[in-house]
Amino acid sequence: MGMTLVEKILAAHCDREQVKAGELINVKLDGTLANDITAPVAIREFNKLGVETVFDKNKVFLVPDHFAPNKDIMSAEQAKIMREFAYKHEIVNYFEIGEMGVEHCLLPEKGLVLPGDVIIGADSHTCTYGALGAFATGVGSTDLACGMATGEAWLKVPETIKFVFKGELQPYVTGKDLILHAIGDIGVDGARYCSMEFTGPVIDKLTMDQRFTMANMAIEAGAKCGLFEADDTTLAYVKERAKRDFTVYKADADAEYCHVIEYDVTNLEPVVAYPHLPENTHPVSDGKDIVIDQVVIGSCTNGRLEDLRVAARLLEGNKVNRKVRTIVIPGTQQIYLDAMNEGLVEIFIKAGAIVSTPTCGPCLGGHMGILAKGERAVATTNRNFVGRMGHPESEVYLASPAVAAATAIKGTITDPKEIKPFEEVMK
Amino acid sequence: MGMTLVEKILAAHCDREQVKAGELINVKLDGTLANDITAPVAIREFNKLGVETVFDKNKVFLVPDHFAPNKDIMSAEQAKIMREFAYKHEIVNYFEIGEMGVEHCLLPEKGLVLPGDVIIGADSHTCTYGALGAFATGVGSTDLACGMATGEAWLKVPETIKFVFKGELQPYVTGKDLILHAIGDIGVDGARYCSMEFTGPVIDKLTMDQRFTMANMAIEAGAKCGLFEADDTTLAYVKERAKRDFTVYKADADAEYCHVIEYDVTNLEPVVAYPHLPENTHPVSDGKDIVIDQVVIGSCTNGRLEDLRVAARLLEGNKVNRKVRTIVIPGTQQIYLDAMNEGLVEIFIKAGAIVSTPTCGPCLGGHMGILAKGERAVATTNRNFVGRMGHPESEVYLASPAVAAATAIKGTITDPKEIKPFEEVMK
Repeated sequence: MGMTLVEKILAAHCDREQVKAGELINVKLDGTLANDITAPVAIREFNKLGVETVFDKNKVFLVPDHFAPNKDIMSAEQAKIMREFAYKHEIVNYFEIGEMGVEHCLLPEKGLVLPGDVIIGADSHTCTYGALGAFATGVGSTDLACGMATGEAWLKVPETIKFVFKGELQPYVTGKDLILHAIGDIGVDGARYCSMEFTGPVIDKLTMDQRFTMANMAIEAGAKCGLFEADDTTLAYVKERAKRDFTVYKADADAEYCHVIEYDVTNLEPVVAYPHLPENTHPVSDGKDIVIDQVVIGSCTNGRLEDLRVAARLLEGNKVNRKVRTIVIPGTQQIYLDAMNEGLVEIFIKAGAIVSTPTCGPCLGGHMGILAKGERAVATTNRNFVGRMGHPESEVYLASPAVAAATAIKGTITDPKEIKPFEEVMK
Repeated sequence: MGMTLVEKILAAHCDREQVKAGELINVKLDGTLANDITAPVAIREFNKLGVETVFDKNKVFLVPDHFAPNKDIMSAEQAKIMREFAYKHEIVNYFEIGEMGVEHCLLPEKGLVLPGDVIIGADSHTCTYGALGAFATGVGSTDLACGMATGEAWLKVPETIKFVFKGELQPYVTGKDLILHAIGDIGVDGARYCSMEFTGPVIDKLTMDQRFTMANMAIEAGAKCGLFEADDTTLAYVKERAKRDFTVYKADADAEYCHVIEYDVTNLEPVVAYPHLPENTHPVSDGKDIVIDQVVIGSCTNGRLEDLRVAARLLEGNKVNRKVRTIVIPGTQQIYLDAMNEGLVEIFIKAGAIVSTPTCGPCLGGHMGILAKGERAVATTNRNFVGRMGHPESEVYLASPAVAAATAIKGTITDPKEIKPFEEVMK
């Protein structure tokens, strides 16, 4: 019996020839991640375990990104707990502000996650690393504590839904639109505890940045993970970053899928998920009467260089609408630097946007752009739940960076092709 | 009987030939300022006054800078009150994020404050504009409401203390060190309700950016204002910004001063104000055993281009100490852009500092770098009161940007000359 991609990876991490969906297994971990919200809880649990130190000081990743630079005394105290733990246990991959970035942008960039890895993170969007062909999933802080102590985790092997994307993408239709389209189709629990495996000719041509966006949102369909088979695009990305060996796994031809879902995306236009669920998707053209107060371009979903590039090229020569607070947040210091050296930061500022230091910021209602009652944001982030970005009566519309930038200019939800032809932006 | 500089300006604003310290007068205002903390209070009072609109929609300045981009729901609601008022009354000089900056950096930069003006602001550091030879002072939000409605303010003409700075400044000794030295000498109530008039050959050679720093901190000695006579340096700064006429006032030779204080600053070394008062000054060399957790370079005191330049040149080729969170906050979008185009932002990021969008941020314990219990910061800001930057048991040491940058590198309070010779930094 053949194995799916996730079964292949998990089997290799529990030293078995074969595992099958539904089995309970113990896997060896290539890394554990926590941030300034979840690490303090995990550390408290870790300290109860009676172990001397972490399983491997190179494989525990600690990133203060959610409320950092510290937004208030409480977040400062949280960050301090994490920092003191990091220094006490000589954690190599603790990233102080100034070295850091949004965790799910940072870890792949630093080469800390590689194809074939098994990673757990006390953050639901840990599934982002599926873009590299790694099994990566979010866990609770208690599970993480055990992971940090033992280097192992207990889990049920997920079933796999295979998504096949066919056709030709229209201009300005991106990985963000594909994943929103899929979530809109199957619903926010449509892939519950499954592995979403993204395949097909459209996926083969997708850049790494867009694959990260898609894998990142697998959790928004309830998935355990969202996987791409590592290919030449993956290897090109990984080659300049990897500092250790890794294994590329492929699904067997006779692997068993619980569902196979095919999309012909040729006629797909940019997608916007309306409040208050990522499954509440609409074509961008439906939104032209929706007035927006704030635009956020960033986050672990869409804070990478390619995201900033398309937004900047749309904004170039334009001004953001005076009534739209436009907040651009590069995912990491390196992305910030690259964006600056490409002239993107200058374009943002001249257009009247603000450029923040890397942080999760407003995505989770943290800081750096919180909404008041009745306000509406278009955001490139991953969740539009009630009150996610601020007041319970505020609204978040999820979209791609291109749609977000076009909306910032017009002040209402806007198809980017109304701002500039795609060819002009891509040249 | 001759008049001091402040008497000259105030007399001209109540249509009298002569006013004298101690008199109560009503003055015409050239501008009123409020920010996202004080405007909502002022607006509530304004709405009680029964007036239809503001006295002059070009002369009411509204800047959301303290908790912007909104740090939480409460600050988002505050900003919203301000924004709605601005649109309702067609306030020309309302600055949304993306257009804005720290108010006291922004208004002079935009040419909204000119020599000879009388400005009130619902912010204690409104005195900053004294650097331009304008009478500018902080008022309560209720007074500001009346100012916005009537274009007038009631006040007592202050007595004047004349400060004469003589000698030759040592390398790395700046306006920040001069004002800290003066406050250290006279104490935080040493100039209570007085005009501090800064004069002498050292002052004559001081750049505008350093004069802003000095005027900014006049309130830290309890002063009503801190004034510089407009000279060629002032006029060069103002010429490219002014969009209206203005008058340069000079003190009469026979003006009456309550005190004349002379300093020979030839042997002054960089000054650091220890917790928890700006008067608690020490030479930088005293601090070499004081371990620092955070450095903040920015604020209405020292967030200008010259400040960023000296800090960057010290950091160039160096890395900030891994245990020092180093936060650089350009004062305005223009300063940010200029710093980027000069390569300073790249230097900061490569050195391991973070660069924030303009905001008052941590200076007042707002956001973007709040201290946990027991932590210590060196900051280029203006106040080191108990709990000012976070936890009541945290500590703030006030210093110049050069001392702050040197400290970021070493991790303890450091004289910049230990990092690089001054000539190398200034070339």
